[in-house]
Amino acid sequence: MTTTLPLAQTPRTSRDTAAGACCAPLVREAADPETAVELARVFKALGDPTRVRLLSVIAAHDGGEACVCDLTEPVGLSQPTVSHHLKLMVDAGLLTREQRGKWAYYSVVPGALNRLGVLLTETAG
Amino acid sequence: MTTTLPLAQTPRTSRDTAAGACCAPLVREAADPETAVELARVFKALGDPTRVRLLSVIAAHDGGEACVCDLTEPVGLSQPTVSHHLKLMVDAGLLTREQRGKWAYYSVVPGALNRLGVLLTETAG
Repeated sequence: MTTTLPLAQTPRTSRDTAAGACCAPLVREAADPETAVELARVFKALGDPTRVRLLSVIAAHDGGEACVCDLTEPVGLSQPTVSHHLKLMVDAGLLTREQRGKWAYYSVVPGALNRLGVLLTETAG
Repeated sequence: MTTTLPLAQTPRTSRDTAAGACCAPLVREAADPETAVELARVFKALGDPTRVRLLSVIAAHDGGEACVCDLTEPVGLSQPTVSHHLKLMVDAGLLTREQRGKWAYYSVVPGALNRLGVLLTETAG
């Protein structure tokens, strides 16, 4: 169910370095358009206060895992609505979901957010 | 021009720890609703492939700084459109802008993205 981010798809060529720069030269390569689309999708999944709250509440649980039954009260929303928000984050690769008997449990994918930041600003190229 | 993230506004009380949890107890505190709104605003600013590309291109420049004159070609958009996208990221605290003569220069705020991830998943409480 988890979408793998294309972390290995760093660009192998850079037309940017050949573009007549007026200023400082490029020293690393930027994310290619396909990677940018994928990253934007993940960021968009977090562009909602309820989803930020849910991710934060899950991360604050012991072991970075929480039962959906514990997530409705903190955000004050119904379980179907909460489950919808959680699914968007599972699809974006930020959470994993595991069914155990009656309840679904959600875990934060370790380092998912930090990887986004690193990919964008520190390891390009 | 930079919006400061409310990194110091971690919640001081947590009703979550008192909520009848069915599962693992909370061991840290989650982001409060106001912080969640602010974080979501920053993530939303990155929920667009063009802005991800622009941030990535700027980060790939020497010193993490780029002239707006170097940013139109990589994304294939007009300078007014590029400047609009850049302004959204300045307002979100992801970039800083400095006018030098004819051109505006944009810099990545160091660690801005990593701080988002840390705030959400590692340092709550």
